[in-house]
Amino acid sequence: MTTQQRRILVIGIGAGDPDHLTLGAVKAMGRADVFFIVGKGDDKSALTDLRHRMLDEHARAPHRVVEVDDPGRDRRPMGRSDYTSAVRDWRTRRADIFERLLREEMTADETGAFLVWGDPSLYDSTLGILADIEARGSVSPSIEVIPGISSVSTLAARHRVPLNQVGRPVHITPARRLSDVAQNDDGDIVVMLDAHESFTRVEGDDVWIYWGAYLGTPDELLVAGPLREVSGRIRRLRAEARDRHGWIMDTYLLRSQERNGPRP
Amino acid sequence: MTTQQRRILVIGIGAGDPDHLTLGAVKAMGRADVFFIVGKGDDKSALTDLRHRMLDEHARAPHRVVEVDDPGRDRRPMGRSDYTSAVRDWRTRRADIFERLLREEMTADETGAFLVWGDPSLYDSTLGILADIEARGSVSPSIEVIPGISSVSTLAARHRVPLNQVGRPVHITPARRLSDVAQNDDGDIVVMLDAHESFTRVEGDDVWIYWGAYLGTPDELLVAGPLREVSGRIRRLRAEARDRHGWIMDTYLLRSQERNGPRP
Repeated sequence: MTTQQRRILVIGIGAGDPDHLTLGAVKAMGRADVFFIVGKGDDKSALTDLRHRMLDEHARAPHRVVEVDDPGRDRRPMGRSDYTSAVRDWRTRRADIFERLLREEMTADETGAFLVWGDPSLYDSTLGILADIEARGSVSPSIEVIPGISSVSTLAARHRVPLNQVGRPVHITPARRLSDVAQNDDGDIVVMLDAHESFTRVEGDDVWIYWGAYLGTPDELLVAGPLREVSGRIRRLRAEARDRHGWIMDTYLLRSQERNGPRP
Repeated sequence: MTTQQRRILVIGIGAGDPDHLTLGAVKAMGRADVFFIVGKGDDKSALTDLRHRMLDEHARAPHRVVEVDDPGRDRRPMGRSDYTSAVRDWRTRRADIFERLLREEMTADETGAFLVWGDPSLYDSTLGILADIEARGSVSPSIEVIPGISSVSTLAARHRVPLNQVGRPVHITPARRLSDVAQNDDGDIVVMLDAHESFTRVEGDDVWIYWGAYLGTPDELLVAGPLREVSGRIRRLRAEARDRHGWIMDTYLLRSQERNGPRP
């Protein structure tokens, strides 16, 4: 099997607000011949529609769009080794799909593009999977990454707060690692990918939460306040919104006054 | 003294590449009557020029630009309490300047804007200082934040790597807290504001560094590799570039293979 060269753009398109697109992302969309859109289960229709609207506005004519379904992964609660195994299995199946897209749905003379929600550098698998398929040896992608506005930046902007306190670190973590990260005694914590309301298990009377869901979209929800006081309200809002939309994507910043001391 | 209402836009303009501007930032620039540009010491001319070029292209006519010098702060190496005290003193003087700008250089009918490098949520003082002057009581700013592409996102994009490994946290820290953060045994570390080449004091034969300076600009420098092997090269590049430009702004990602294990 010969190694095929492919030009690939990985374009961060922001957290849901079409105005999050950068001028560089708009230019990159105008350079692509074929766009690969990977649907994500429940949230598929709303998010896929938004990408199609962006393409209608910014892609050049003619261009092709190839839509594929995400293979999906086992999302039941599980221990660390089962989790790693489930992710590995899902990545292999995703790499199979990406490899087929790059080999069969574009040529070496064309430019392909993946439109990635948020920022391709933060909790997105596209770059890792492209590295995986390069390692397989049948496709050699030449990759350009266009950074995007992440949901983390959007959360902070909508609450009008910095992510960090002066001179201190900020930790960004998947919810399943929150308890480990929270044992550090310095800095604020941004929690991603929380399917199980981990904020309800955070200790400390001095912790504030800045929470947001569907950030950047017309359905955006925001709550800020002392965690003890607003936790119940966030749980109710989450449950109602998930019933209404069929899916939810939320993130939050936890800021401990005790941990950080007063702002200098 | 009466409290004066002020409409303020805090606009993230990206890490140095004019194409990092979002469509939202361009629209916001078109809504402002007056722009406040705060010069930052050595790097002043290059970065101020770039902001002026962005205004020429995107601001509406007519608009006003008010430039002020940053009061500067004591940047000698110092302990934590002296550091906190130096930062507090600098913030007070900066708040004095901002308060005067908001009270004297614009009216309640106008919209003022601060153009912030990178993302206003990450290691930028603008939001904190606006909160400080609101607490003083003479000005009540109504603030809208437009998120921007941070130097952290740009670093990852230019190296075409994710900031996090699958299912693991990422820690963003000022260099002075690197040794504390590095004691955690989980996740990758992004280091900001490193005036003293802290990477030379990082231990571990398995650590990779992804380093970048002047990110997003035509002067951009990138080095990636095993820290032990490329550390000397980064130090030489830093020294040469700082001599040539008179200032340097760099950031880097440290990734420990041992810490993270193989990628799932």
